[in-house]
Amino acid sequence: MKKDSLDIKPIVWTGSAVELIDQTKLPDSFETITLTESKQVISAIKNLKVRGAPAIGIAGACAVALAAQKLQKELHGRKSDNSSHSPKLLAVFRQRMASISGQIRRSRPTAINLEWAVTRMVSVIHQSDSINAAVLNLNNEAFQIIEEDISANLSLSHHGSALIKTNSAVLTHCNAGALATAGHGTALGIIKSAWAAGKNISVFITETRPVLQGARLTSWELSQTDIPYTLIIDSAAASLMYSGNISCVVVGADRISANGDVANKIGTYGLAIAAKANNIPFYVAAPLSTIDLNISAGNNIPIEHRPPDEVTSIWGHNSSLAGLTVQNMAFDITPNHLITAVITERGIIRQPYKLNIEKVVHS
Amino acid sequence: MKKDSLDIKPIVWTGSAVELIDQTKLPDSFETITLTESKQVISAIKNLKVRGAPAIGIAGACAVALAAQKLQKELHGRKSDNSSHSPKLLAVFRQRMASISGQIRRSRPTAINLEWAVTRMVSVIHQSDSINAAVLNLNNEAFQIIEEDISANLSLSHHGSALIKTNSAVLTHCNAGALATAGHGTALGIIKSAWAAGKNISVFITETRPVLQGARLTSWELSQTDIPYTLIIDSAAASLMYSGNISCVVVGADRISANGDVANKIGTYGLAIAAKANNIPFYVAAPLSTIDLNISAGNNIPIEHRPPDEVTSIWGHNSSLAGLTVQNMAFDITPNHLITAVITERGIIRQPYKLNIEKVVHS
Repeated sequence: MKKDSLDIKPIVWTGSAVELIDQTKLPDSFETITLTESKQVISAIKNLKVRGAPAIGIAGACAVALAAQKLQKELHGRKSDNSSHSPKLLAVFRQRMASISGQIRRSRPTAINLEWAVTRMVSVIHQSDSINAAVLNLNNEAFQIIEEDISANLSLSHHGSALIKTNSAVLTHCNAGALATAGHGTALGIIKSAWAAGKNISVFITETRPVLQGARLTSWELSQTDIPYTLIIDSAAASLMYSGNISCVVVGADRISANGDVANKIGTYGLAIAAKANNIPFYVAAPLSTIDLNISAGNNIPIEHRPPDEVTSIWGHNSSLAGLTVQNMAFDITPNHLITAVITERGIIRQPYKLNIEKVVHS
Repeated sequence: MKKDSLDIKPIVWTGSAVELIDQTKLPDSFETITLTESKQVISAIKNLKVRGAPAIGIAGACAVALAAQKLQKELHGRKSDNSSHSPKLLAVFRQRMASISGQIRRSRPTAINLEWAVTRMVSVIHQSDSINAAVLNLNNEAFQIIEEDISANLSLSHHGSALIKTNSAVLTHCNAGALATAGHGTALGIIKSAWAAGKNISVFITETRPVLQGARLTSWELSQTDIPYTLIIDSAAASLMYSGNISCVVVGADRISANGDVANKIGTYGLAIAAKANNIPFYVAAPLSTIDLNISAGNNIPIEHRPPDEVTSIWGHNSSLAGLTVQNMAFDITPNHLITAVITERGIIRQPYKLNIEKVVHS
């Protein structure tokens, strides 16, 4: 029996630990890891055990909550001045939490959701008048962020589903599914919702070099559904568009600037140009937490460069000469004019993006 | 000390055997294989031990010569009617050679060079008035085809080199180097000739999934030179064009139709669209043996679909779920309007291609 899309729970917050599906192990094995320290979460984010913009935001929020719990124990363990209400201890707590939050925030640079979630957690700290209250509120905030993310994904998937015609072949890149979020997914969430609405669709998934999120994760996620899908190499997508095999493209986003430029997995820009050249709609699906109004245009979004061996070493085998020069940008920028619509939980945003994004964010 | 570009000899015809660099082993190990039977050559072509349009044409020519030698021994070993000049035996020889030539011709469908070379060898058979003469002439024709290919590559590289500006960064895809030809190369030949002419250039090479000809072969070939190069994943090329890091693109071709549409390694079309969108010249380098005047437009060029496990199994590790659906086209079609120029041994061809290709071919 096929699972309900919400049965995949990539991030579970227990109140004292965060349980993650280890995404480096899929699809070979399904393993969950239980992390109780913020440092473990930072490491899991850096090593891609958890990935996807919304998911790393949520993991970051849990990391803040875990750090607060640890610090609470440490500060209250001090012999003197062990009251949770001590202003002096609270000041120390806030200062130390600011430093730890900075570390969490910096674990990966491109997805704004991490920044967004950590900022939200830090503001909870500032609104709490004691260490105990802060720990309790952070705990609740982590639950809240997870619930909101799932709710946003279901909502944006409902909106986006209306754009997917029956009998269409949808191309998606990387993994913007349940695994990239707290549940259901964004781009893949739209596909699942369109299928659930009875639309007869099929999906082309790109393998997504170098980390193979499409081949490994999206294939696994779609295998939990009845939706038919076909795996292709990244560079085959344009040709399939040219030959009329793709009806539309739906991808996720790691950060959307105020003017609607989109940072997303490397390769997204090439897909967008190919879609434009072939008159194929190109949709970006993302919760509002992915929009960064502080950045005016895509060229100001920081792009993460990852280690060369992510490209040269595949399954432990070196595919190229040792020591050669590699450029491994994990993301690229798609300029707004290539994007047909941005699909959010508050509805579908179209050009002119600067105006319409602001409207939706402030609505 | 760096090697001269002609020191790489991917195909050596000895007169009784063809020696190939086994391209499935590079860059891990440099191994040559010596083949004395046409069936071995067919298998080497199918298994990509030898690849690249000109190279498989040449290997195909050698396979015809080897088949003729074997058949000569077999027919002359017969007790009766063992004269080389027997019209009956010659007819049998021609008939059997037609059948074997067909098998060689069909070993891979997209590169027209294979068709071209085998057709040329078959016409040598028809011009020979005895089996012994045919064997001798085929032997010489194989030598001739190799010499002509090297000469064509040096000549087209000379022409193409004039298009490469100093201080430019050239993007190439797959391997259109010495390894794809009898020597020097086409697209990579141009890059080598530009470098040899004293131009300060650097090269971006795409890894070229699924078979990794860029990561494995082009990196190895450039490591034999002093030319600086950087490896990227296929889907990063468009983004590098957008950010102004690519001056021009030079690729090879597997078949060029009469109107100038180009069949080449999958991914070429996507690079051409990205180049066009970013006002970057897109050059195709190929000897005239790659042009097929019998095919009016690219959509009539047969595109090879290769086995799914070429995509899913990387270095023996399955990157995806067992049994999933894969579409693995080895080539795509780039329409002529995206191509700035086609560079051949008889000079540079520009739009309108139908007219200008015909002129050059018949010049």
